[in-house]
Amino acid sequence: MTKIHDITNRTSLARAITLMESTRADHQQEAHTLLASLLPKTGNSIRIGITGVPGVGKSTFIEAFGLHVIEQGHKVAVLAIDPSSTKTGGSILGDKTRMSKLSQHEDAFIRPSPTGGSLGGVARRTREAMLLCEAAGYDVIIVETVGVGQSEIEVADMVDMFLLLLLPGSGDELQGIKKGIVELADLIVVNKADGDLAASAKRVRADYSAALRMLHPSNHSWQPKAITCSALLGDGIPEIWHSVGEFARIMDDNGDLQRHRSKQAISWMWKEIREMLMNQFKQHPKVSARIGEMEEAVQKGEITPTQAGYTLLDIFQKVDADGSPLQE
Amino acid sequence: MTKIHDITNRTSLARAITLMESTRADHQQEAHTLLASLLPKTGNSIRIGITGVPGVGKSTFIEAFGLHVIEQGHKVAVLAIDPSSTKTGGSILGDKTRMSKLSQHEDAFIRPSPTGGSLGGVARRTREAMLLCEAAGYDVIIVETVGVGQSEIEVADMVDMFLLLLLPGSGDELQGIKKGIVELADLIVVNKADGDLAASAKRVRADYSAALRMLHPSNHSWQPKAITCSALLGDGIPEIWHSVGEFARIMDDNGDLQRHRSKQAISWMWKEIREMLMNQFKQHPKVSARIGEMEEAVQKGEITPTQAGYTLLDIFQKVDADGSPLQE
Repeated sequence: MTKIHDITNRTSLARAITLMESTRADHQQEAHTLLASLLPKTGNSIRIGITGVPGVGKSTFIEAFGLHVIEQGHKVAVLAIDPSSTKTGGSILGDKTRMSKLSQHEDAFIRPSPTGGSLGGVARRTREAMLLCEAAGYDVIIVETVGVGQSEIEVADMVDMFLLLLLPGSGDELQGIKKGIVELADLIVVNKADGDLAASAKRVRADYSAALRMLHPSNHSWQPKAITCSALLGDGIPEIWHSVGEFARIMDDNGDLQRHRSKQAISWMWKEIREMLMNQFKQHPKVSARIGEMEEAVQKGEITPTQAGYTLLDIFQKVDADGSPLQE
Repeated sequence: MTKIHDITNRTSLARAITLMESTRADHQQEAHTLLASLLPKTGNSIRIGITGVPGVGKSTFIEAFGLHVIEQGHKVAVLAIDPSSTKTGGSILGDKTRMSKLSQHEDAFIRPSPTGGSLGGVARRTREAMLLCEAAGYDVIIVETVGVGQSEIEVADMVDMFLLLLLPGSGDELQGIKKGIVELADLIVVNKADGDLAASAKRVRADYSAALRMLHPSNHSWQPKAITCSALLGDGIPEIWHSVGEFARIMDDNGDLQRHRSKQAISWMWKEIREMLMNQFKQHPKVSARIGEMEEAVQKGEITPTQAGYTLLDIFQKVDADGSPLQE
């Protein structure tokens, strides 16, 4: 594959992201060199995270929202993280037939990120993909994830604003949503507020408005709110885009956006370090040979977690002191 | 100091915890050997985490609650984590004059854990102190923390049941409470439901009951609830103890308690490993000399977080490969 020198079209952008996601060191190196040269062009976007359980209508919502945003003169990139997919297998997010109108639009770029079972790794690369999209001129970045695992927290940690999509219903729609996710939301969108479900959607919206008031005192610069929408009919989409704009303006004006991004960047650096160190630790043959046994002893209460941890650390460091390679 | 052979009285228990908290390796070794011999005696308690902002009346609540529990024939240990205190300085939690009746009772053991600025370390030792208390025959363990930082999450991660104390008021009482804490709560207690504040407390309780229903669908084995209490008058204390008993019974009957504790123990083992590795990394002289510079470059957007992380990892591993000691 020839070197990528710019990412001015969707094909070269897609190739740059593929390089970034590659497990080959030379590919990653090339992608990082490219990104380093493009850094001054990054940052000029609003970064929106969107989550919701399967069936909430994420694709329909993102298509309607994305097309509306493009109509307002913006360029939209959608990066989808799907912890349930694999590199080769099919997945709801990898399905190219969804968001068909949006994906065909020249001002949109849609990119599913299969995780291959290891969320951390891909979420890390998704952060870099986001920067590449910004450098390519996309000024509205949507990072989408299924609301069923750890990925929501990872995503909330890399975006400016976090949207939670909910279904009308009895509150049971939260069954699949992890503790703490509602409190991460800057905007709750109750989708499918049409037809028979319209009244129920209004009720859910009112309930969450009340809950959000309890969770988020009003003296912060942004008061999270709940809103209804019908992605199918397009109802509520302009209001949601208006809220995003309002959020961005308030956060930008008082400096919170820059502070938030700086904090995210530092914590991202430390996450990279932590994940690399832990990977080296877990993949060390003499350590990994003992992990199962230690975990079992801890679970049975035969040994304290601290003792088990120290035992594994000793193995790791002794091997290391013997001159064996620290890294696999 | 002579060796500790048992922890049958409060003095020897307190000394064992002091050894555990010591930074001297031989002290820790002795404490861990002792704990290892006592492991079969641990686990027979209900572990309750309690948090709330300063001023919510935690001391008054724990004193009233602890005395009530002792009246029911139990032995109560209170371990307090105060991220704002230091080893030498005074602190609200270190104040020996608080909980004066409870601390004088022969069936109670109260232990403040100053953190000296590093929460992780002490929270780790608090977990072991909890086990030592169990081995010493305390069957109700209360781990108390101030609801202003990271410590609530650490505490929620080491207990069976998590109580959040709130004040009557307009919702502003949550100002100091981190996002996600309300969703960690198994029981919300609105304290100071007496005198002029009684009506307001009832209203806050009703609001949180509604919010909890939105956050926690009813099909889990335990439905978190909100309750009012006046620790000052003792109102509501028996009801709270009843809820704790109900929680413990339900969780024990369906096996959730054991599963929850197993999961906590494994995650504790990995936390120990992660913290040790990260401490070695951060304290490595050649790494620590570059951290500030890297963080600044990341914040200014001159370098990506990933590049900065890799640069620091390279320094760490190169030094190591040169044969320098990995550990300080």
